[in-house]
Amino acid sequence: VQIIPSKGHPFVYGEILTAGPDASTLLFYGHYDVQPADPLELWETGPYDPTVRGENLYGRGTSDMKGQNVACFNAVEAAVQAGDLPVNVKFLIEGEEEVGSPNMHPFLEANKDMLACDVSINPDSGMLGKEYPTINYALRGLSYFEIRVQGPAVDLHSGMFGGTVLNPANELARLIGGMHDENGRITLPGFYDRVREMDAEERAELARLPRTDGDFLEQSGSPALWGEAGFTSIERVGGRPTLDVNGFLSGFVEPGQKTVLPAKAMAKISTRLVPDQDPKEVYKQMVQYMEEHANPGITWEVEYMSGSPASISARDSKYALAMAAALETVWGTRPVFYRVGGSVPVVGDMQRVLGVDSVLTGFGLPDDAIHSPNEKMHLPTWRKGTAALIHMIYNLA
Amino acid sequence: VQIIPSKGHPFVYGEILTAGPDASTLLFYGHYDVQPADPLELWETGPYDPTVRGENLYGRGTSDMKGQNVACFNAVEAAVQAGDLPVNVKFLIEGEEEVGSPNMHPFLEANKDMLACDVSINPDSGMLGKEYPTINYALRGLSYFEIRVQGPAVDLHSGMFGGTVLNPANELARLIGGMHDENGRITLPGFYDRVREMDAEERAELARLPRTDGDFLEQSGSPALWGEAGFTSIERVGGRPTLDVNGFLSGFVEPGQKTVLPAKAMAKISTRLVPDQDPKEVYKQMVQYMEEHANPGITWEVEYMSGSPASISARDSKYALAMAAALETVWGTRPVFYRVGGSVPVVGDMQRVLGVDSVLTGFGLPDDAIHSPNEKMHLPTWRKGTAALIHMIYNLA
Repeated sequence: VQIIPSKGHPFVYGEILTAGPDASTLLFYGHYDVQPADPLELWETGPYDPTVRGENLYGRGTSDMKGQNVACFNAVEAAVQAGDLPVNVKFLIEGEEEVGSPNMHPFLEANKDMLACDVSINPDSGMLGKEYPTINYALRGLSYFEIRVQGPAVDLHSGMFGGTVLNPANELARLIGGMHDENGRITLPGFYDRVREMDAEERAELARLPRTDGDFLEQSGSPALWGEAGFTSIERVGGRPTLDVNGFLSGFVEPGQKTVLPAKAMAKISTRLVPDQDPKEVYKQMVQYMEEHANPGITWEVEYMSGSPASISARDSKYALAMAAALETVWGTRPVFYRVGGSVPVVGDMQRVLGVDSVLTGFGLPDDAIHSPNEKMHLPTWRKGTAALIHMIYNLA
Repeated sequence: VQIIPSKGHPFVYGEILTAGPDASTLLFYGHYDVQPADPLELWETGPYDPTVRGENLYGRGTSDMKGQNVACFNAVEAAVQAGDLPVNVKFLIEGEEEVGSPNMHPFLEANKDMLACDVSINPDSGMLGKEYPTINYALRGLSYFEIRVQGPAVDLHSGMFGGTVLNPANELARLIGGMHDENGRITLPGFYDRVREMDAEERAELARLPRTDGDFLEQSGSPALWGEAGFTSIERVGGRPTLDVNGFLSGFVEPGQKTVLPAKAMAKISTRLVPDQDPKEVYKQMVQYMEEHANPGITWEVEYMSGSPASISARDSKYALAMAAALETVWGTRPVFYRVGGSVPVVGDMQRVLGVDSVLTGFGLPDDAIHSPNEKMHLPTWRKGTAALIHMIYNLA
């Protein structure tokens, strides 16, 4: 075991490479950092004073994700104590996941040989319910822009000029409005050309997931659902690309009124991407959309702020199947395969730098209150998870 | 002459009612307040140290509008000294025009009898050029709204929910985009029903004005002009209604990026109105537009913040004709009749409270630098203006 310094919190690395060069090598990923515990007064027992009440262990990090790390340690230890470990094992535990893993990419680049493996086992993504062992096999990518529009040279009096020059806020609103059609589809030219469609089998799998449109409605608090026609909410969030305004600013936004015709308007817009969309290509599509639709009464620029491609792991890889079989053995039910709408940088980093997929799973539950007071780990689920990890190891023997 | 206190700066009132009850009564309007003089270092001579250089008198308020007031005093004094004044004369000089005349309306209400008159002569609106004696006969009205839209109950993660709930910023943008059609016409239902169209004679008069589309382009600094199809810039600004976003705010607008799906979006939107549009009816049209077009994935409200109707004065009233003839006598050219795009509250207040039109004229020039350093009054023009006011008085004899 080594503790390896970085510009931020150090990395912890350990390995057991006794299975020999022909055996599979698993890289268990984890993080030891946690979210702040405040507000402290809402905790029934101290966040760093782990306490069992009923079936749960309460404390900061129990679910996200020290408990998950310990499940991995325990599984490997059980296998070591039972005889020869049938796989090579590496552990990489970072300390900056909750702040976006800013030092992960250079660390992977600098330690490619040490970290060489066949797959990453990432137990940081939880379950959809305690009866639903879960494997997350896809994450969406991102392409993030800032669009800046200028109309007149300076703010003008809306009475003296209104109606004879184009208002950049009106125009940017119109342009954004046109970025979706009446079916909720995105109109950037060529936007869907590289979108990998879900086949009937995958859609049937997603339909098994225990998360209904009603759940999305309730969890969002929106008055009604919305989205691309022809898809369920779970498909829209996991398997379809989106375009959202993250911020919009123009003119006078304090309380009261001012009859200004603003000179400028700005919007931050991000697209969530699915395989095989390319973030920089989407940027070009955004620029092309603006070229084709912007009125000459404004000037504009689109800044590409960041981007990362979507990632998808084969659901039928040797490792995904080994984990799926292990989960089914322990739970007695076939696991659900889930697509996650967000992005997890470390997964993409490992794909790009180490060339390996991640098997994303975990034994946290939706009501574990991660990032909140009274975070807990459901111990019976955690023990089943530990057992499943042991089965996975032997499924790869 | 009386100095009459108000909640703000006092009003100055004076009268000469020697012409008797059958003669016309003119109410000369003026204001004695001025804009701040800073930045002081840009003045060639002190702002309150009036200085003649060449044909101009330099100093704060020379053009806006103490010089105009003095032209009126001199004209009346000349007539008084020449013999019997053929009209009754009242003067009302306020001290809060530059801050929107907040105490004018109650003052008029409280002093209706004292201020009773046949017409208000308002020399605060300037000329389009020194060879163009000008009468402004129309001002646009206003109806100002704030639209607040809510999607999800709280800000959401754009990865976890993006694509399955309606983004309120996207939706508000789409709704605003739809408020104009491809011809630059406003799509609020019934918006043009009460718009009084300009006839061919009026449009021909406006076409005489020495302000071209090129002037609007240059003065605005916009890359191109824009507006309602079928109208010139001068017609669009003076004689057609408009709808402008004055402010738009949603989500994260600081530098950098945040993948938030915002819960709320807000826009301040104002319409400039022409006769005979009704500000509160336009509010109802905005509400109806929202009812007809807003997606059920958001809730919304439209707040009516303020409104005032447009005003228009007959170009062929006895008083307008008297002023026009006077200007033509002095300049040797027929005056231009101009529609102003902005709103002047005192004109509407006088129409509503005293029941009188205003004849808006004045002898300030576009390059007088009002509100700026080195404000000046062009003395030859000012002397001609004084002469025109004298002629007007005798034209009403």
